[in-house]
Amino acid sequence: MSQPKSTTALLLSLRAHMQKLKEPLSAYIVPSADAHASEYLAECDKRRAFISGFTGSAGTAIVTQNHACMWTDGRYYLQASEEMDSNWKLMKEGVPSTPSQGTWLSTSLPSGSTVGVDPNLISYNRWLPLREQLESAGHKLIPVETNLIDLVWDNKPSAPLNPVLPLPLMYTGLKIGDKLKAVREKMREKNASIVVLTFLDEIAWFLNLRGSDIEFNPVFFSYVIIKENSFTVFMDPKQYTPTVEEHLKEEVGNEKFVIKNYDTIKEVLKENMEGLAGKVWVSNQANYSIFSVIPKKSIIDENTPVQLFKAIKNPVERQGMRNAHIKDGVALCSYFSWLEKNVSSETITEISGANKLEAFRAEQNDYVGPSFDTISSVGPHGAIIHYKPTSHSDIQIKTNCIYLCDSGGQYKDGTTDVTRTMHFGTPTEYERECFTRVLKGQINLGTSVFPTKIKGNCLDAFARKFLWDVGLDYAHGTGHGIGSYLNVHEGPMEVSWRTTKDDPGLEAGMFISNEPGFYEDGKFGIRIEDIVEIVVATPPHNFNNRGYLTFDTITLAPIQTKMIRVDMLTEKELGHLNRYHKKCRDILGPILEQQGKTDVKEWLWKETEPLVAS
Amino acid sequence: MSQPKSTTALLLSLRAHMQKLKEPLSAYIVPSADAHASEYLAECDKRRAFISGFTGSAGTAIVTQNHACMWTDGRYYLQASEEMDSNWKLMKEGVPSTPSQGTWLSTSLPSGSTVGVDPNLISYNRWLPLREQLESAGHKLIPVETNLIDLVWDNKPSAPLNPVLPLPLMYTGLKIGDKLKAVREKMREKNASIVVLTFLDEIAWFLNLRGSDIEFNPVFFSYVIIKENSFTVFMDPKQYTPTVEEHLKEEVGNEKFVIKNYDTIKEVLKENMEGLAGKVWVSNQANYSIFSVIPKKSIIDENTPVQLFKAIKNPVERQGMRNAHIKDGVALCSYFSWLEKNVSSETITEISGANKLEAFRAEQNDYVGPSFDTISSVGPHGAIIHYKPTSHSDIQIKTNCIYLCDSGGQYKDGTTDVTRTMHFGTPTEYERECFTRVLKGQINLGTSVFPTKIKGNCLDAFARKFLWDVGLDYAHGTGHGIGSYLNVHEGPMEVSWRTTKDDPGLEAGMFISNEPGFYEDGKFGIRIEDIVEIVVATPPHNFNNRGYLTFDTITLAPIQTKMIRVDMLTEKELGHLNRYHKKCRDILGPILEQQGKTDVKEWLWKETEPLVAS
Repeated sequence: MSQPKSTTALLLSLRAHMQKLKEPLSAYIVPSADAHASEYLAECDKRRAFISGFTGSAGTAIVTQNHACMWTDGRYYLQASEEMDSNWKLMKEGVPSTPSQGTWLSTSLPSGSTVGVDPNLISYNRWLPLREQLESAGHKLIPVETNLIDLVWDNKPSAPLNPVLPLPLMYTGLKIGDKLKAVREKMREKNASIVVLTFLDEIAWFLNLRGSDIEFNPVFFSYVIIKENSFTVFMDPKQYTPTVEEHLKEEVGNEKFVIKNYDTIKEVLKENMEGLAGKVWVSNQANYSIFSVIPKKSIIDENTPVQLFKAIKNPVERQGMRNAHIKDGVALCSYFSWLEKNVSSETITEISGANKLEAFRAEQNDYVGPSFDTISSVGPHGAIIHYKPTSHSDIQIKTNCIYLCDSGGQYKDGTTDVTRTMHFGTPTEYERECFTRVLKGQINLGTSVFPTKIKGNCLDAFARKFLWDVGLDYAHGTGHGIGSYLNVHEGPMEVSWRTTKDDPGLEAGMFISNEPGFYEDGKFGIRIEDIVEIVVATPPHNFNNRGYLTFDTITLAPIQTKMIRVDMLTEKELGHLNRYHKKCRDILGPILEQQGKTDVKEWLWKETEPLVAS
Repeated sequence: MSQPKSTTALLLSLRAHMQKLKEPLSAYIVPSADAHASEYLAECDKRRAFISGFTGSAGTAIVTQNHACMWTDGRYYLQASEEMDSNWKLMKEGVPSTPSQGTWLSTSLPSGSTVGVDPNLISYNRWLPLREQLESAGHKLIPVETNLIDLVWDNKPSAPLNPVLPLPLMYTGLKIGDKLKAVREKMREKNASIVVLTFLDEIAWFLNLRGSDIEFNPVFFSYVIIKENSFTVFMDPKQYTPTVEEHLKEEVGNEKFVIKNYDTIKEVLKENMEGLAGKVWVSNQANYSIFSVIPKKSIIDENTPVQLFKAIKNPVERQGMRNAHIKDGVALCSYFSWLEKNVSSETITEISGANKLEAFRAEQNDYVGPSFDTISSVGPHGAIIHYKPTSHSDIQIKTNCIYLCDSGGQYKDGTTDVTRTMHFGTPTEYERECFTRVLKGQINLGTSVFPTKIKGNCLDAFARKFLWDVGLDYAHGTGHGIGSYLNVHEGPMEVSWRTTKDDPGLEAGMFISNEPGFYEDGKFGIRIEDIVEIVVATPPHNFNNRGYLTFDTITLAPIQTKMIRVDMLTEKELGHLNRYHKKCRDILGPILEQQGKTDVKEWLWKETEPLVAS
């Protein structure tokens, strides 16, 4: 296990800086965020990880003169407690007894305290209620423009400026000009003169450009301002190459556009506020710094039209997603069959296994790279929900415990994210029961029919039911959106027990994950994750003309039948599983054949042998 | 069918008054509310019904110079369109294409418009976002202290002043003094110097008093201010009898309390704001007029502790609820058996049937009256979800169509609310399929196991699943809280596809309804409604020490097996239904015996004959 980072000295000097400010801070909030609310961060933006040692993707640090607390969710309880030293206190989000950050600040600070945060790193929709809560507790929330972590961070890496490349129409399906038309329509509907794009993935999608400034996410640092008859792109001149310029000119038609420096967004936006006719449309998840220059009465703080267009894939993107998942299925079958064959004869570790999987993906057309850090986890490591094997933690994949592999690829035609859980020896009855309950939940959700625009949180319990029945559960959501050759996690829809105000509900053409799990700390982890396309269902009725939807699973990789207790499955569930396995055979079989991967095909046939009710 | 009310003249003079104001109104909002956010209203508060003709329990009218629009939910689509004349436009809430009131006002008024509302009739949590939305659309929302409907309402009934009576400890289980202790503890936790009680049911519960100022709701018009070492009750002197005074003195212990005039609440609250040490705790559903005197920084706008204590019944209340439902079961069986026996020989109508049911309830101990207007509905009337038979609409209960009966009683030991749907002839296969799908959903929810504090909206889809599977649904929530000898609908928890920010989640000791349904406009309505007690479940595991809960059905009345397609039920569902019917026999049988109601008992035995898988 890796050693926790020693943070005593860092906290000492951070606290000194908190005191030195003109308005000294009683507490400083360190979100894990960049100026674009990105989930994954460039090295230069990993401030929360730097100050605390906790490297998980989600977490917020709050440092006072006496305390250093880390809020994170169930995926990271174990990892955080392993990575942080004794200066830090873990605050388990999702556990009812855990106070929210606002409540903790309100109650544990001496009244009249000042709380500071970098306005570029906190979203408007977090800033507002937090400020209100702190103020009503007699405290103050202030924006601190100089980032205090940067002041204590020696040799901080500089911002990346990796190449930005056009993504051809054969992958995007829609030119910038056409996307603009749709945006302008929405702008008219809402009387908006300006739309500000602040999320890197919506900008990459809108401009049909891809970069690599953030690991795993094919994006580049930028902003976009869309006005009634022109738009402005804010990016680094070094990244605005002739190729990019040519691409924009070719795709926008006779639309006017301007290129400005990335760091001028705030001042340019400010200039645009003078003599503003209509509203300014910015997602309420954009950073507070952006909002601070927009008159309150002009704000539309809703999902931008681009976020919604991006979430509902166009026919070319849909085809691309399906195609990417076929290629991914070939890689997965190649890996798992190789692993099963060699696990007892060779020394295969979590890392070397992950590398092998990566190698199989690299054989596929249009493969770009992994869509996130492969979670290749053996036994107890599987219970660390977002475990990433390190040289310290790496252990051998053996036949005496469960192996959980959650991985994904970036292909030019789509992004994948898949988890399979298997045992290469003999699983215990308990492990098989848990696996089967997770599977029943996954099938229950995957086969559900529901009215258009139902929010995912109404469906979440379908996936948990069979775990809840025996007092089990999992401390993460059940489904997230996924981009097409974009971020592996994208909103604004989700499937979770949580509810988000801006969830637009589910619509045909969206792609989400279906990934229930179960985790026994210190023992094992189980997760079964597929990507599902939301498709129109055709039930006999259509109450209130709502239109009904269901899911079509596009991930193609066998569910290890050894882990299934067939006696716990209903006929319907068996039928569904057998049909799914037949689909894997029908689609992957011919390809494996053609590629001469007969051993892989044999393995696939073995793994997808139809199950019969016991 | 009843004639719609002619509202042309009324709207004309209302619009004139809107113009006459110092700040003329472009739009006037007429909520269906009193100053206490009551769902049921005293006659003097039925302003929305008066101006529009629509008498349903939920709806908001907005009148502009050119439009008169009525927002209401799926329960009332039909009723509203029948009761309103052509001056009115029905806005179907819950249908995605229907604009919210705020959006409609923002978009359809000329910019710079002024919108008015009586601040006593709009809750703080509706006022805030509406004002923000209107302001950001360039409009204004202003409080209009004089109610404009009252100005056009000739011979408006005066406010009721019915007797207020103590409810003995044998029913309440807890003295006022003990309730105060618990409240004070919560006040200390939140640094609150004042709690303001504004909901009539929380006040009645807190003071262990009951009244009858509002039909069906045993409440009286009042406010309460709880301070650190005293409390003030605001009520009409005529209702503050020596009996009430004696009761308070006896139950509060040596606590100081003051009685003040009902209509002095606002000024007294204002006085209390001077030199205020801690916060003021008021539900955000309290009216805006109350909030307007509280400094923003002092507001805690959350569920009051009393709302939460009331929702989690104490052991005496729980026993009372169960007991009330046994008595209710006797009345229900007496009615349904009588109905089945005589429906083809006598002329029994929706109204005379309802009266007969009322008579059977009246035979029971501690019966006070109905808990709401009995929905006794034949055939197409069943599709009008909150149908109330009137002399115009009343039709005979026949053997050729479905009969839906939703009714409830107020007993001193508890409140009941139950729906049974039956056919006294031969139901169609389609009717039986729909009934069975509703039943499967009701069982699916009723047998579910879930973690403590899960919000009801996560469970709602359990009840809809089998309808959704074939493209059917119902346009109302699945479960509401219920008071003990209090309002038939109470919060703050609920089970619905909707989510409410202040839903505290489900806990043991709460009682809610479990009432899925299906409605085919113009043909029939199906609803199966039980009251369920939330009880601790004992599954083999207890993940994260969350504690797991399930439901215990306390309503005792057979589900008409004739309506069930047994072939559509799983073994589990059959087992559950048979166990439920056995429970009805075991508990009601001996009582019917003892009361010499042998014919009723025979009917009960016939109706609860165990079903066997086909």
